[in-house]
This record gives sequence, C-alpha cells and structure tokens, in this order.
Amino acid sequence: MSRSCHVALIGQKFMGRAHSNAYRQAPVFFDLPMRPVLHSIAARNAEELAAFATQWGYPNHTTRWRDFAKDEAIDLVDVATPNDLHAEPSIAMLEAGKHVACEKPLARTLDEARTMRDAAKKSRRRTFVWFNYRRCPAVAFAYRLVREGRLGDIRHVRATYLQSWGGPDTPLLWRFKKKYAGSGAHGDLNAHIVDMARFLTGDEITEVHGAVSRTFVKERAIPGPVKRGAKKTGKSDVDDALLFLASFRGGAVASFEATRVAPGHLNANTMELNGTKGSLRFDFEDMDVLQFHDATVPDREQGWKRIICTSAGNHPYAEAWWPDAHGLGYEHGFTNMVADMMRVLGGEAPEVPLPDFADAYETQRVLEAAVISARERTAIRMREVK
Amino acid sequence: MSRSCHVALIGQKFMGRAHSNAYRQAPVFFDLPMRPVLHSIAARNAEELAAFATQWGYPNHTTRWRDFAKDEAIDLVDVATPNDLHAEPSIAMLEAGKHVACEKPLARTLDEARTMRDAAKKSRRRTFVWFNYRRCPAVAFAYRLVREGRLGDIRHVRATYLQSWGGPDTPLLWRFKKKYAGSGAHGDLNAHIVDMARFLTGDEITEVHGAVSRTFVKERAIPGPVKRGAKKTGKSDVDDALLFLASFRGGAVASFEATRVAPGHLNANTMELNGTKGSLRFDFEDMDVLQFHDATVPDREQGWKRIICTSAGNHPYAEAWWPDAHGLGYEHGFTNMVADMMRVLGGEAPEVPLPDFADAYETQRVLEAAVISARERTAIRMREVK
Amino acid sequence: MSRSCHVALIGQKFMGRAHSNAYRQAPVFFDLPMRPVLHSIAARNAEELAAFATQWGYPNHTTRWRDFAKDEAIDLVDVATPNDLHAEPSIAMLEAGKHVACEKPLARTLDEARTMRDAAKKSRRRTFVWFNYRRCPAVAFAYRLVREGRLGDIRHVRATYLQSWGGPDTPLLWRFKKKYAGSGAHGDLNAHIVDMARFLTGDEITEVHGAVSRTFVKERAIPGPVKRGAKKTGKSDVDDALLFLASFRGGAVASFEATRVAPGHLNANTMELNGTKGSLRFDFEDMDVLQFHDATVPDREQGWKRIICTSAGNHPYAEAWWPDAHGLGYEHGFTNMVADMMRVLGGEAPEVPLPDFADAYETQRVLEAAVISARERTAIRMREVK
Amino acid sequence: MSRSCHVALIGQKFMGRAHSNAYRQAPVFFDLPMRPVLHSIAARNAEELAAFATQWGYPNHTTRWRDFAKDEAIDLVDVATPNDLHAEPSIAMLEAGKHVACEKPLARTLDEARTMRDAAKKSRRRTFVWFNYRRCPAVAFAYRLVREGRLGDIRHVRATYLQSWGGPDTPLLWRFKKKYAGSGAHGDLNAHIVDMARFLTGDEITEVHGAVSRTFVKERAIPGPVKRGAKKTGKSDVDDALLFLASFRGGAVASFEATRVAPGHLNANTMELNGTKGSLRFDFEDMDVLQFHDATVPDREQGWKRIICTSAGNHPYAEAWWPDAHGLGYEHGFTNMVADMMRVLGGEAPEVPLPDFADAYETQRVLEAAVISARERTAIRMREVK
Repeated sequence: MSRSCHVALIGQKFMGRAHSNAYRQAPVFFDLPMRPVLHSIAARNAEELAAFATQWGYPNHTTRWRDFAKDEAIDLVDVATPNDLHAEPSIAMLEAGKHVACEKPLARTLDEARTMRDAAKKSRRRTFVWFNYRRCPAVAFAYRLVREGRLGDIRHVRATYLQSWGGPDTPLLWRFKKKYAGSGAHGDLNAHIVDMARFLTGDEITEVHGAVSRTFVKERAIPGPVKRGAKKTGKSDVDDALLFLASFRGGAVASFEATRVAPGHLNANTMELNGTKGSLRFDFEDMDVLQFHDATVPDREQGWKRIICTSAGNHPYAEAWWPDAHGLGYEHGFTNMVADMMRVLGGEAPEVPLPDFADAYETQRVLEAAVISARERTAIRMREVK
Repeated sequence: MSRSCHVALIGQKFMGRAHSNAYRQAPVFFDLPMRPVLHSIAARNAEELAAFATQWGYPNHTTRWRDFAKDEAIDLVDVATPNDLHAEPSIAMLEAGKHVACEKPLARTLDEARTMRDAAKKSRRRTFVWFNYRRCPAVAFAYRLVREGRLGDIRHVRATYLQSWGGPDTPLLWRFKKKYAGSGAHGDLNAHIVDMARFLTGDEITEVHGAVSRTFVKERAIPGPVKRGAKKTGKSDVDDALLFLASFRGGAVASFEATRVAPGHLNANTMELNGTKGSLRFDFEDMDVLQFHDATVPDREQGWKRIICTSAGNHPYAEAWWPDAHGLGYEHGFTNMVADMMRVLGGEAPEVPLPDFADAYETQRVLEAAVISARERTAIRMREVK
Repeated sequence: MSRSCHVALIGQKFMGRAHSNAYRQAPVFFDLPMRPVLHSIAARNAEELAAFATQWGYPNHTTRWRDFAKDEAIDLVDVATPNDLHAEPSIAMLEAGKHVACEKPLARTLDEARTMRDAAKKSRRRTFVWFNYRRCPAVAFAYRLVREGRLGDIRHVRATYLQSWGGPDTPLLWRFKKKYAGSGAHGDLNAHIVDMARFLTGDEITEVHGAVSRTFVKERAIPGPVKRGAKKTGKSDVDDALLFLASFRGGAVASFEATRVAPGHLNANTMELNGTKGSLRFDFEDMDVLQFHDATVPDREQGWKRIICTSAGNHPYAEAWWPDAHGLGYEHGFTNMVADMMRVLGGEAPEVPLPDFADAYETQRVLEAAVISARERTAIRMREVK
Repeated sequence: MSRSCHVALIGQKFMGRAHSNAYRQAPVFFDLPMRPVLHSIAARNAEELAAFATQWGYPNHTTRWRDFAKDEAIDLVDVATPNDLHAEPSIAMLEAGKHVACEKPLARTLDEARTMRDAAKKSRRRTFVWFNYRRCPAVAFAYRLVREGRLGDIRHVRATYLQSWGGPDTPLLWRFKKKYAGSGAHGDLNAHIVDMARFLTGDEITEVHGAVSRTFVKERAIPGPVKRGAKKTGKSDVDDALLFLASFRGGAVASFEATRVAPGHLNANTMELNGTKGSLRFDFEDMDVLQFHDATVPDREQGWKRIICTSAGNHPYAEAWWPDAHGLGYEHGFTNMVADMMRVLGGEAPEVPLPDFADAYETQRVLEAAVISARERTAIRMREVK
C-alpha cells in the first residue's frame, strides 16, 4: 500500500494545468511508493479558482497561498506562478517544512536564486525544479547513452530553443516585463537548454565567450481592457532573443540560442552533442525521437539513426505508457516527473536525476554570466578591422 | 558565334578537378556569350601533371605558373592552389592583364587579402572568388526570395558548416598548418557561410560579439613516407572548430560555427534566416532543396515547405540541366559559376551576383574580427559568477 | 451544469486502459454537455479486475458483463474486448437500451457485422466504433481541407499500416487465431486505413481489383505455461500481411497494405491523397503533422508543407490541450473521441463525424471483398506469360 | 593504354543529352579499360542535329541511322529514341555486328521485346538496357547489403514511381500515344521499379495478383502549331497510372505503382524492402541516401539509419567522384553506367550487374502480366458484397 503525498499548488494558468494533470495521471500509469493526492489550490483570481478546483479535483482552494504553511496535511507545495512569485513562496514553504517543487527558471536574478538555494539547503526538505524536458523518454535515453560512454569525449554542444509567438501583435504579458520575468527568452528558454546541456553532458560550463541580446519589439499593447485615458502600449524591457557561446570543463565548445521571433519554430527545443565516438540529436518538435550517429561502426554504414524511444523495457518511462510508437506528448514529461518526484519522496531512485534548487542555481549562474557578457559589450566593431 | 576565353589553371588537386570539370561542362549545357577553352595547367608535381592534362584536355602543362603572365593567349587564370599560393599568382596575373578566378578563402590573412583587393582594383581586370555554394539553385532561389521581400526584416541568421573528417587519424595535411592555410575550419568553412550570409541578406556585419576557437587534435602524423630518424608527427597550429556571434547592420543577430570534428556531418553547410514575414533554410546535404516558411499565410496552414529547386523556368540555372527533381550535385555549383563568369566576361549579367576580390575582402574582415575576438579572451569565467 | 453519462466497460487490457484514460481525461480538458462517469468494469480475470477498477476509479466490477443489461444506471456500454466478443455484448446491450461503443474491427466476419448493424438500427440507440485515428488533430484537419475542396478531384489514395511485432518470437496470442480475431493484420490494421480513406475522401469503394494475403509465420509458441505433454506450439491461421487494390466511386485508385512483419515500422499508419489541386500525407509515427502540397500556388513555390496541427483556434481539438507544438500523443485520439461521443449524446455536433455501426459495416464490406479477392486466386501466373 | 569504343547515338532529345554527357564524362572520371569515343549522331530533325553534334562533340551526324550498319568504325550503337523505334534499330545493329545499348522500356509490347531478346542471343554481341537507377550509389550499395544477407528473407517489396507532370495542360506528346509508347506511366515508370525490384532482391516475380489502370486525362491538346481546320485535341490511349500487386518466388509480396498525376511528387522512384533481418529504403528525390534498418541490433537502438552513400572506398562509384557528401546528381547514374559498360566491353567486371536484353525481357514479361491483369477485370464489385 503506497503512502500519500498531499499536494498544494500555487498558480492555475498554463503550468497549473500541466502540473495538475501530471499529479492526476502519474499514480494511474506508474506503480509508485508514494501517491500524490491533490489537496489545495491557491491563486489570485477567486472566480476562476473555484472552477479550476472543481475541474481538476482539488478539494480546497484559497487566494492566500501563505495559509499552506500552517496546514499540516500538506506535504508538498508546488509553485507554478510567474517568476516574481518563485522565491517568496518557495522559501516560506521550505521554512514551514514542506517539500517544494518550483517552476523554472528558478528565479528572476542570481541573487534571488541564491536565497532559494540557501533556504533549501537549510531546510533539509526536498526541492524540485520543473525542467520537464529531462523526462522526455528520448532525452532520458540520451542521458543513458552518454553515461555509457557512447559519445566518447564531447566536443560540441549545439542548443537552440526557438519559438515564434513573440511578434509585435503579442501584447505586453508579464513575460515581457523584467520585474515579473527577470528576463525574456533567456530565462524562459535558455534556462531549459542550459539545464539539458548540463544534464546530458554531466559537465559544467567554465567560460562564457560572448553573448548578444536583442529586444526586437520594444513597445507592446497593454493586454485586457485599458482604462480611458490610460496608455495603450507599454515598454517591453526583456530580451526577445539571446545567444551565447560557452566552454565546458571537459573541453567542449557550446552555443545556446533562445528566441521568440523565429517564424517556423513553435517549440524547437533542440540539442546536439558531438563526441569523439558519436553524436546525439534531439528536437522537441519530434519529441519521441532520438537521433544517434555511432561513429564506431564501419564507415560505409555510418549515418544518423532515428530511434523512436517508446519501447517498453528498452526506453525510460516507456513501460508505463502505450505500445511502441503509440506516441507520447508534451504532458507526459510532467507526468514522468511527478512519478520520479514520488519515487524520491518514497525513498526510491528516479529514472534519471531530478534537478533541485542547488542544481538549478548552477543553471542560473550560467544565465547570469551570459547576461553579463551581453551587457559588457566587449564586441569587436567591424569598422575597426581594416 | 560565341567568343573564346582561354583558361589557364594553377593546381591539380580537388579544386583543380572541380574547376576543370566546370570549364568542360558549362559551354555544353549553357548558351553563353563567351566560351571557356582549356589552355594550360600548372602544378608542382610534373609527373601527375601530364596525366592530368591529358585526362582533362589541357593542351599545355607546366610546372612554372609564372610563365602564364607572358602568354598572350591566356585570358583568365584560375588559382586553385592551397591558401599560401593565392596572393602571389593572383597579383602577378592581374598585373599581367589577366582576369583572375581565385579559390576561397581569398587569403591566409587580412593583410594578404588587402593586397589582393588593391591589386584587383588597380588592374581593372575581372576577379572572381570561388564561393561556389552561391550557385546552388536552392541558394540562388533563396537570394531572389529575400530580394522580393518575402522574409521581411531579417532578425536571425543561423549558419553552420560542420564536417567530421578531422579526427586524430587524419594526417598533418597543409590544411592543418597555419603557414599554408592561414587558419583551419575557420577559413575553410566559415569563409563559405560568412559569404553566404552576406550574399543572402545583402547586409553587412557590424559587430562580432564573441568567439571561441579550439584545436582538439594538437599532434598529427606527418603524411607520406617519413625519413628514417625524422619526426613522425607534427603540430597542428590551426583551429579544428571556431564559433562566433555577430550582428548585422539591419539588426539581425547571427551565429556561425565551423568544425571538422562533428560526427554525423559530412558537409553540413547550413543556413537559416528568420525574418518578420518568413524564414528560409538550406542544408547542402540536401542541396537541391530550399525550405521556406511563409509567415504571411493563414496560421492553420503555416509550416516549412520543402521546395525542390530544379524546375526549368522557375528556379535559377534549372533551364540548363535536367527535368524537375532529376537532381543536381556538388559539381553543378562550379559549372553554374563558370557559366556566370563567362556571361560577365561576355558582357551579360550573371544569374545572381558573383563575388570578386573586393567582396571576398569584406568576408575576410569578418573572419579576422572573429579571430581577434577569440584571441583577446574577453570571456566571462564562471568562477567569478557566484 | 452538464449531465452525466454512466459508462460500463467490458475489457481491461490495452484497449481497456486506453478507453478508461479517455473517459477520465475528456471532461477535464473539454467543456462538454455530457460528462462521462465511470460506473462499472467487467472482465474475465477476477483477480486483475479489482486492481484495475481501483487504479482507474471504477466503483463497480464484475466478471459477468451480462449484468450490465439490467443495471438502469448504466447509459453507455463500451466493448473493448477481443473481436470474438464484439457482436454478442454489443447486441445484448443495444437490446437492453444502452448506447454502445465498440472496438474495431466491428466484427470477425461480415455476417457478424451485419447483425450488429441491424441491431443498432433497430435499437435507435447511439453506436460508436473506436476508429480513434480519425480524431488525431492532423487527420481531422485533413478532413476539413478535403471538404473545402483543397485537393480538387481525388485520384490516388495510398494507405499503409505497417508494424513489425509479428515475428516468429511472438507467441500465439488471440490475434493469431481466426476464431478469436477473424483475420490478422487485415482486420486489425487495414480496418483503420479503410475507415480513414472513406472518412477523408467522403467517397465509397466500388471495386477491389486484386489482393494478396500471406501468413509468413505459420507456427507459434503457445503463450503462458504449457501443461506437461501438451503441444508447445500452435498454428496461426490468420494473415500476417494483406495488400489490396481498389477503386472509389469518384474515380480514384487506391492501394491498402497491412503488415505485422515490416522491420522499421512500429505503427506506420500512413495515408496519402493526390488530387487535381493538391495532395495530403499523414503518418501516425509523426502524428501531430499533416503534410500538404498545394498544387495551385506558383510552380516555383510548390512543395510539401509540414504543418504541425496543434494550434488552438486553427486545428481541431487543439483548443482543449497545450500551446502550439507542445505535442499530443496516441491517447489523445481516444480522449478527443470521448469528447465527441459526449457531444453527440448531449445533443451537440462532434468536431468531425463519428463512425457508427452502419458506417463500420461499410468498412467491413470492403475488408470482406479483399478477402474474397485474395482467396479466389485470379492471379496471373508468370509462367503463362511468355 | 585503353582501347577505344566508338559510339553512335540515335536520338537527340532528353535521353540523347543524358547519354552524350555520360560518354563524355565517364573516361574523365573513371580509369577504364575501354574509352568511349563519340563518333556519330543520328536523328530526324536535320536542323537541330547539326547544332547538337557541335555542342556535344560528335564529328558525324546523319538523318539515316541505318547507315551506321555499314560503318565499320562504329562499335556500339546507342538507341535513345521513343519506344516505337527501339526494336528495329536494335535488331538491325545487332545483325550488323554492333553492340547495342537501348533505352528502357525495352519495347512497346512483349512480342517486340521477344524479337529483341532473340536477336541479341543470336548476335553474340553485348546488349545493355538503360535502367540507369541501378547505378545510383545508394541503389548499388543496397544491392550489396542484400547480397550479404543483411535483410534475411525478403517479405515485402514496396515500390512507387510517382510523378506529376501529366495533368490536363500537358499536350499529347508521343508518351500519350500507344502506337509510339506502348503504354503510359506503366512502361515508362513501372519498368524502372520492376527492374530495380528484380535487381535488388535477385528474385523473380511468379504471380501478379491484381492491377488497376487509369487514364484520367482522355483528351489532350495536339502539341505544336495545328493546321487550320485540323483537330486541336487528340485522344490519349495510354494509362496515366497503373498499380499492381505481385509475389516473388521467395515468398515476398510486392506492390508497384506508377503515376504521372500525383502532385507533390516530381520523380519519386522509391523502393522499400522488408526482410526478416532488416529493411532498406530508397527515394530518388534524396538520391545519395540509403535508409537502412538493421533489425539485429539491440531493440533500444533500432531505427532507420540515413546513410549518405558517397564515401570513397566504402560506396560503389564514390571513388570516381567528389569527397563525402559532396553530392551526385541524376546524370551520374548514366555516367556510372557508361563506365560499367566500358568495363564489360573491356573484359572487366561491372561494379554491379548490367541489364541486357534477356534481363529486360523478364521485366517486360512482368509489365505484360500486369496489363493482362488490369484488362481482364476480375475485380470484385462491392455491390455484390453484402
């Protein structure tokens, strides 16, 4: 008989839905030592809140997330709010003795992230950060191949996270304001691929060699009804795109690119690793697939192999789901993550390692270094090169 | 009746073959105002030379390229030698009143390139640089789409040239020695994609934001028979990979990456452009294809369209060749280039613009800026970010 | 406030799981006029049954499906059993006044299918057949494009359903015995693509021009523990592969191929339509994508467009799920189907038409014609052609 | 020193160009025991003929191909004419003691093909049939893999040759008239894929299980200037599409489909083989690539591998051409074929077997069986299946 883990969620938007679904589905599909039980939902909008609670099956709802601290029935608090509301509830709940799962990026700034990391360390509770893409079966399988030495020494990391929803017609959502989001595409998208690069290589970035940040759309419409006489547009003060180059301790060179203005790419979270013995390639737009090039087979038979990572007994998480090539979707990464969180809370090992606040802090340091590099403008100007 | 252009070639290796084939084929497939006629071939290895001349149909051959200067029958000298032998023959032949076609990269260094540019300017003869990929039908078609405004304002340029032949088993060819090659993957491969980015966008790079250069294999076997007692290995002093970030005048941000050590990539000359109205994508490993994403069609029908650019009357150069989707290969880029060179020498317009020494000098400036950026080590060290 | 539809399920294997998940998920993600409520589960294996009921949330379970007839609380009976147990419970439940949803193929034989169709007609209850692939967003979007005339007159239908799990190591499951399954790959896989071809074209097959059926593996191990002295292997008496050619009323020619022994294909449910104005292509192994070739755009811009069919407001069912290109999986087809079933039972229109017993009977007629064609051996023998 | 083979060509259209180019290029790129030398060209249109001879380097030209018989200097006659002019010149030239290379399909009818086969047998001269696709490096490499047993027993052959140029705007070319062409898409396209299937499997078809033939466009404009009062359109009496099913002696089942009216396909000569140990896939629209699925590697690493077949020393014909992934095109299949023809005439072995008249006659028998099957209308009518 599995024990129960009572979950309280803060946030009821996109991530609130994704997390809620994961808590509902994980115990049905996985055999787990700990069973997540939906306990409470907190959010600002009281009206939407009741409907959300009913729809997803939360017995309790509140507009005051702080009350969770006092509720002894709650074991895990899940922070699925905009970035400006990560640090405060995470730290408060850790101090109240709860386990905490927080959305990515960990925080708006490195300073904020540090306070969260320190609070986690002090609390001795479990922390988790929702870098959900680690738990796509193809990514988890890539992790294993790298661990088995199939790539040899890694020399190249080539990562992009390209989207296209950030054109001038998109209004001034919280994601375009630094005070809420910390940064734009950088924290939202580069956070994922920096985490994935660190996760897959098992290596750490030691240098950032240059960066360029761009805000292509500087003025955006204020969303929702605008009061008479009020300004109709506002300033976006975050990056629409940020690219940077880096080196890993082991010698690999790496490029990272995040953008919200690349037509043709909806959710192109891609990563390629080239090593002395082979290469791997992942693209979330073809999420169940891992491309593998084994450079140790005879030359005449070398090529990229398209492996559909859905085979029970062969690929991570596949056992829980459907027959081979009866594909999984975006939401399954979250469900797989809840399964691993429950394993960890129940004393078992996760399928592949889970990121905690300390780990996410390392990712945040890399993001910070890229921001510094972009800001310090050590660029070579072409007019000086003659 | 078309006039003749008598061609003298210097170099008989890979590029010597590719150019010779192009001169042979162009007048058969294209209707041209000027007909290339093979006149002479010069190379160092006298033995191989005679066989090469016979095989390819050169009536004359010599080990002394300088003699071309005095031969009034020669109209065009083609310099298809290693990079250390670009400047000297090019300048000498320009001074002798010949038109000159030179292999890329234009030179080993920016200083060398400048002397060549200046010699070209002074000579008032035609110069050409063998950036052959401009003349892939798919690339030339991309050029036209950009000119027609189909991409809107370009915001992203994403270029790679990935190969994998440079592992530790590859001996110390001239390509791995700075005194012959100038640089490694950078001059060999980044030269192509910098040229292509400038060509397609019609824009110039104004800043280089950072670069990282890496020599993964530092010691290589000396090729050919090694004398008793002599060293069996030597030092490679060029980059195996070089990545850099840049900005264009028009505001686009760009990444460039060249490598010889990326298993799975044999000749992955790839470029993607993202603009406000659409995107284009080219990969030489699928060379007849241009991927086009038109962001102005209704949302429900947006997607990457795979256009096979081989339709006579619709795509550049297609008229000269075979029916639709009866594909072209690597060599056709060279043949198309000879056709355009002959058009220009015959007073007609090329299908798309040809790069001359002045143009290639601009590409060389960008390469130089990347080298400076990589060397000056303005990297942010992660240990300083806490 | 939506009404409830109490569901009783028969069968607890692969399809029992897929359907149960769909009933659980549909009301959470969709806003429906009728809410499915899990009421009872029936299956043979009493031991597994209790666990299944608990896991999926069925308040009642029984080994006697016939009892459902008497239970007035049950509105809909879902028949998710092997093919030999489709007709009997479907007819019994229709006679008891229940709506019935039955797995595909409708029946083992055309005779059986006819009795089911007739029972459905007589009952005036709603029937549904689980041709789940109709409700992949990409397939439903294809349906709309065809309806809008985007393909013009359809001339070619090219359909395959290729799998590879049926090698000699696979034991003698019920799927390999005619008395349980009716047929092999034919009823299992061709049923899907015949349904999809009829659905997408809106046209009916008028002739079957030839067929070939093959049982490659004739003897298979008996699964599970075999009694001492009993035979260890048994005979497979169904097809491993069946191919046939057909014509549609509108003049299109069509090929259908089903197989369980095609290495490299795990679940390659593919369909291509070529019409006078354009073409469409679907492959379930890339399930969120519809390939569209619009032959009415200028020649130079023609090509296959890869449309990711996940855009809310633009593609069927997308509104209910996640942001663009945050992909869906196999299970979502079932959930989308439950949503449409509930809409129909609640008096609303489904997103795209649902197959009922009368419709599935037409598919079964086509399957039967192919079996007759293969059996009657009107093949031309090559030795007679000289 | 290699001997010379003097070549006379009949025909100066599409195939005349393709063959002429091949004779020019083969001796430059390959080291051959026999060197093709262009000797004469014959064609009907005297005006075009002289220009063609000059352009391609034929020293002699004539409108009377029969004169070739008397010219002792001619060694090989190449028949590159429409199908109605295959048998007569081929037989005449064989009787005159010439080697003969004939375009495909061998003949309009099986009777005609038989007389050609018999003439070839009697002559003891070499015959060749231009099934050029055998000599794509990827196809020749597939041949080798099959010979090495990498597929095990072949169970499925799936072949298409899809084009789209045959819409109603295409005029009544000779290819649409039975008296010139024999058949439509069938002889033009199915001939290629039947040859390729026989070549790759090394097996023979024993039965044709059904076929369907369709002429979608029955009336076409008469091409060129039409005399006043003359009819402006004429009847097409050949198939626009023909599909058939077959069995091979070894037990494999096969489907073949040829069409000229499939938008989105320009030259989709595709073939897939599925065997007990693996699968192969070729698509001429990606001609340098062979897809290989090895079913003997561990399950978790199975997938389609995209092998670019351009590696010198590893892939057939690659040695003669360019570095790895510096792709080849359509014309190279012809050049590779001339190289192999010259090897055979010079007493050496070809890279892979060449089809002669006897071999092409076997392909023609299969085509004939399909025509009989389509004509005899043994189709099952759906209205009889109730």
